[in-house]
This record gives sequence, C-alpha cells and structure tokens, in this order.
Amino acid sequence: MKQRELICSRCSVRQPFRYHNMKCVCGGTLLVDYDIEQIANTFSKTALPYRSPSMWRYHELLPVLDEANIVSLGEGGTPLLRMPAWERKLPLGQLYLKREEQNPTGSFKSRGFSAAVSLLKEAGVHKAAVPSNGNAAGALAAYAGRAGIEAYVFIPQDCPPLIVQECPLYGAHTFLVDGFIHDAGTIIEAGAAEQGWVNVGTLKEPGRVEGKKTMGLELAEQLGWTFPDVIIYPTGGGSGIIGMWKAYRELKALGWVSCDMPRFVCVQEVGCQPLVDGVSSPAADPSGTADTAAAAFKQPVAPNPTGMRVPAPPDLPLLLAIVRESGGTAVAVSKEEIAEATRQLGAQGISASPEGSATWAAMLRLCDSGWLRGQDRVVLFNTSHAMKYAQPGDAARSLPVLRSYTDFVQQQGQ
Amino acid sequence: MKQRELICSRCSVRQPFRYHNMKCVCGGTLLVDYDIEQIANTFSKTALPYRSPSMWRYHELLPVLDEANIVSLGEGGTPLLRMPAWERKLPLGQLYLKREEQNPTGSFKSRGFSAAVSLLKEAGVHKAAVPSNGNAAGALAAYAGRAGIEAYVFIPQDCPPLIVQECPLYGAHTFLVDGFIHDAGTIIEAGAAEQGWVNVGTLKEPGRVEGKKTMGLELAEQLGWTFPDVIIYPTGGGSGIIGMWKAYRELKALGWVSCDMPRFVCVQEVGCQPLVDGVSSPAADPSGTADTAAAAFKQPVAPNPTGMRVPAPPDLPLLLAIVRESGGTAVAVSKEEIAEATRQLGAQGISASPEGSATWAAMLRLCDSGWLRGQDRVVLFNTSHAMKYAQPGDAARSLPVLRSYTDFVQQQGQ
Repeated sequence: MKQRELICSRCSVRQPFRYHNMKCVCGGTLLVDYDIEQIANTFSKTALPYRSPSMWRYHELLPVLDEANIVSLGEGGTPLLRMPAWERKLPLGQLYLKREEQNPTGSFKSRGFSAAVSLLKEAGVHKAAVPSNGNAAGALAAYAGRAGIEAYVFIPQDCPPLIVQECPLYGAHTFLVDGFIHDAGTIIEAGAAEQGWVNVGTLKEPGRVEGKKTMGLELAEQLGWTFPDVIIYPTGGGSGIIGMWKAYRELKALGWVSCDMPRFVCVQEVGCQPLVDGVSSPAADPSGTADTAAAAFKQPVAPNPTGMRVPAPPDLPLLLAIVRESGGTAVAVSKEEIAEATRQLGAQGISASPEGSATWAAMLRLCDSGWLRGQDRVVLFNTSHAMKYAQPGDAARSLPVLRSYTDFVQQQGQ
Repeated sequence: MKQRELICSRCSVRQPFRYHNMKCVCGGTLLVDYDIEQIANTFSKTALPYRSPSMWRYHELLPVLDEANIVSLGEGGTPLLRMPAWERKLPLGQLYLKREEQNPTGSFKSRGFSAAVSLLKEAGVHKAAVPSNGNAAGALAAYAGRAGIEAYVFIPQDCPPLIVQECPLYGAHTFLVDGFIHDAGTIIEAGAAEQGWVNVGTLKEPGRVEGKKTMGLELAEQLGWTFPDVIIYPTGGGSGIIGMWKAYRELKALGWVSCDMPRFVCVQEVGCQPLVDGVSSPAADPSGTADTAAAAFKQPVAPNPTGMRVPAPPDLPLLLAIVRESGGTAVAVSKEEIAEATRQLGAQGISASPEGSATWAAMLRLCDSGWLRGQDRVVLFNTSHAMKYAQPGDAARSLPVLRSYTDFVQQQGQ
C-alpha cells in the first residue's frame, strides 16, 4: 500500500493526504510526500525499459492509490529533441527542446490533469471547475470527458479562440470571463458551495504538481539519469517548476541521480513578470510581491494573453525560493522577441506556442549576457503547438493560387 | 552494411535501390526490399525496450543507410489508447485508438516525411515538392526545415486554412491550387526538369511507405508482438495501408509474429470512394478504376476536402489486392457521420480530425452490419488533430461572457 502524506513546502508541517485545499495555515503550499524508502525497496529504474512511455510508468511516484483509477489519454513520453545546428552557433554545450505539445491535448497541461482527474475519480468527485488561460481548460475538459466527470471551465475572453473552442468539443461547460485568470478563479470560489464543483486551479489540489513532476522524471531518464544544467521554462502559475524541482529531490532521495540540481530559469512576458521582479528585488518581502504585481497589472500587454500571464501566482515565495536556491534566474521577454523566436523555431520544423517560443528567446538573451556557460546542457520546454494560437485565414488568404505550372513560373517572376 | 533493393509489388521484378521514380515498367509500384535473413541475424526484438520510443527504434527495417542522415523531430511512439467504455457497448472484442495526431506535426504524416526527407538528405537533394491535401505539406515543410532542404508545397485552395498556414511557418514555399490534389501533382511534374525539385508525392519515392510502415511495427509491439484482427484506416493515397501490410509481411518473415494478417478496412468519404467502388466491383478492371473515379469526381462533396479526398490513388490495384487478400473491406461514410463521430470522440477526450472521426463512423457501421465480430480486436487510426481543421471564431464567439458568479447563475437560469 502506497504511503502518501502532505507536507508544507514552507513550514514543513505534515498532514494526512487530502484531495483538495492545499493551503497550509502558515500560507505555504501542501505538497504530496511519499515514503521514499518504501518506494526504493519495490521500484527500480531497471523496471522502466519494460513499461510503456506514458507518464504513468512512474506510478509508484504518483499519488493515485489504485491503478484502476488512472485516467489516461496517452500523456507523457514526449520527445527530447536535440538542436545540433544551434549548438554550433551558440555559446553553450548542449541544447534540447522538450516537445510537450505532443501530449494528447496538444499541450503540457495533459500531464497535470491526467493526475488531477485520476485523483478526482479516486475521491468520487463528479464535478470540477478550473480558471485557465486556455490549455488547462482544454486538458480538464478532455480528461473529465474520459472519466465521465462534469467539467466547468472559465477562460479570460481574450484567450486564443481555438484553445477556447477545444473545451466544448470535449463536452465541457465553457464560459468566457471579462477579466484575468484570477477573476475567473474568483467566480469559481464564489460558486463552490452552491455548485458543488471542486476547484482544480493551480495549487488548489495535489494532482497537477505531481503530474507535471513527470516532465522532470522523464527528462532525467532521457538524459541517462542525470539532470540538465539549466531548465528554461515558461512560468505562469508555476506548477511545472515546483513539479520538476520536486521530481529531482525525489530522484536524489531515491539515489537514482546524484548530480547537482539544475538551475531553473522562469520565463515571463514583459509587463506581467512577478517572478522577474521578485528575483531582481531580493530585499522585498516575497509574500507581498504577487499582490503588488496583480495590482500593477491593469492592462493586457498583447492582443492575446498566454499561459504566462498570471499576475498573482498562488505561491510566489516558493517559486522564488526554487529559482534562487538552484542558482537560476527569471527573464521577461517581449512580444517581438516571442514572435521572432516562433519564426526561428518554425524554420527548424518546430510548431512552437508563444510560451515555448519565449523559452527560446530567453535562451538567446542568456547567451548574449553570458549567463549561460560554454559547457551548459540546456533544456527548453515547448509547452504547446503554435497552431492552437493561430488567428487563421489571413496567412492562407494571401498565398498565391495557381491553375498550372505556367502560373507558378509567372508568380516566381513577380 | 544494410542490403536494400527495390521489388515490384505487381510483377516482382527486382531493381537496385534508387531514391525516386517508383513506377515499374509493368505499371506496378516498386517497394523497398531488405535482406530479412541478414536483419534477423543482427536485430532482435529484445533490443527494443532499451531504445527510445521514436519510430527510428526500428532503423534496421528502414531504408536509411547512415544513421547520421536521419532527420528526426520526435516522430512515432504514439499512444495506443484502449476504449473500455465503448467496448462494453459494442459487439466487438477490444477497441483501440492509435493517436497519430501526437506526432510532431500534429499528424501521421510526420512518419512518412521523416523517412522520406532522411533519404533526400542521404541522396544529397536540396529541393523537394509535394502535392497535398494539407498534412503532408506541413510534414514536408517541417522535416525539410530541420534538414535545411528547400520545400515547395502545392495544396488545393479549399483545404483547411490552419493546415495551409503551418507550411509558411515551417519556411516552405507555399502555393494554393485551383483544383484537386492530382492537379497539384501535375504542376509539380510539369516543373520538375526546370525547377530541379524532387517530387515526394505518394508512391513517388521509397521513404513515405517505409515511414508509415512504422505504424504497423509499433502497433504489433504495443500489442505484445501480435497483430490486431482489424485495422480501420482513413485512406486517400493509401501509403499507410501499403506500409502496414508491408510491416506485417516483414514481421512474419523475421519470425517475430506468427498470427494471421489483420483485415484491412479502408475508410473513404461518400462521393470520393475509388476503393469502395473497387472492392464492391470485383469484376471491374482495377487498373481502370482510378481514372474512372477521377473523371466522375467533378465537385467537392464537402466545404473542405480531407486527406481522404484522393480520386485517383497512385496504385489502386495494390490497395484493392491488400484489402481483398486480407479479408478486409472498404466503407464510405458521410459528412454527417463524420461530424457525429467527431462529437462522440470529443466527448471521450479525443481531438479527432475528420479522417480519424471517419474511422469511428466506419467502425459503428461495421458493428451494425455484423461485419465486425464479437471477439475482434479492432484498431482505429486518429491521423490528425481536430483543431487543425477548425474554422475558428464562431464557436468561441457564441459562448457566454461572465463578469461575476452572479452572471453565471443568471446565465444558468436562462
């Protein structure tokens, strides 16, 4: 029988496992804690080659008790693509792109919601709600559909239309919100008692961090049970950073990996950069930074918000601690840098979301500044497909239309 | 050193390997033939667990000579998802969905073009062209981008705009064509000498069938080195059917699998159904069917063509022979059946393209008719994401916009 408890990431108090409400009385976030010694006795990495590449290959390190409750659509096992042509051009050692857009819902959010919805099923929950900048809503919708759970998703109205449209396709009750992601969260909290839905927003329940943790486990396995030197990750609510940091602590505790922790780099958008502000102001009280940032963040910085646009991450102090302790940093990139990165990645055959493109832009910035070193092994995360953010029609409409090869020749001559 | 030749699928004549022009003088298609005995001596399935889940785990059975020429973006290793809820409702044994939309370019076309572009690189080709209903164009564009090869893609102008837009994102020279896929092919053939591009259209070169073959290899491995009873596959040009049939002949020759070949079911759209017509008219001269169908096919049957809309498959007799010899069949489904299937798959958390949805619709039809049997293990192929076919805007625009929980309650009361 799997031993799982909760432990506060701030005050280290222990509590019995529960399925929602992850806030400790101290204000910290409760995370799942396993009996690593027990796991080490029954789970060996030599078992892994014989398991499917799904993220559930690590089920001993995931919180679901009964494998019959696993709600899977084929998540995890995403490729780690090496970029040799750019390694030769840039002052770094090795450069990899983790292709999270190849998950079932076209984004990294599949992992968190596979774990979260499995826990909802285990808990006998029939109704769940999420505030989301888009990809999380689609993922809840899909996994809830697979599990037969009713999903309610609340999305800022200026989110990309294709990501919004995915939610009703998966059968979710879909609502647009005139406001930011935290306004969507307020609606869910206000209705919780009356509607009986469970809020599966970032850090509201234990599954999403655990699901995101598998990105870190998988990356370590793909790198031959080592850690990269640097992880560059687009950061909104930050559950991916927390998940990967937790993964690497667990791998060290298991004795599977012994090298240093990677330096975590959080990438944000200029104008909505609570982590960048927090990292650059070490003297400031980190627990107040989120509210300050939220208050300062009155207007969207670009026509469509991205997954990085979270003015008030639920546990900013934890994120700042991870970045600082790992020797990492935070970088805010501009809309123009993101667009240029999408083009550069596209030319290499990669369909990169604005968030994924932002990690490329940040990597270039860190090469320029000398922060990245000549031997660094660097991993970027492409968290979603470019096409989910497309405003279709325009590009296709401006293309030449041919009737014959003669038309082609004439068109080339113009 | 890998031994590879070409063999005609119709007259069995052997020829030395070459990189393009796969038409035999007899009119048949040349396919790659390996020295299976040599492979069996050096390649064992016990090696596979220690390889990455990429399709290149089967490189001994792929035509690239030097692994340095492999052009990979992380293709293959797609999940095989079991559908237990529907197994209980339907008169069949086991039901699986192969999630090919999780390939790097969001479609099964990644596999064929990973192999084809690797061969282009091996051959020193710098310029390639393809006629395509969309996903093949995106895949050539992406893999050519990765390889540094110039891509020219020619797409019927009524193809889904998002699929078209992907091509310039990947840096391809992109042209719309006022006509069908064979009209696009005519433009490429007309320009071949002058432009110096290699035509990588269906069955024009040896790589695409070999790449698609890995769907069959992977499926057999995922099913514990057995074949399913029935494969239901959306069929346009048909290189996937040819590839999987070839995969299973090679696995039998290797002695890795000994069970019967699966029954191959080709799914088409009502109104563009050369395979359905060919299967139901066994007396007709199959070599004439393609032209007849092409001539009869004057008007598109739906606003946007799908990958199944190939009035004149390049080697219809070979496809018909595979379907007949395997005990399979061909089914034409309507636009309405496809739309309903997209909805049913969506409600289960699956983002299914029209082509993938068509396999679901065909499966339901074959359950109704009693063609599928109570013990059949059936595999459907979801070849691409629903979202790539989206006409965005409308669905998102009609959703309710909330400012508060009160708005939600009012909206629910309406």
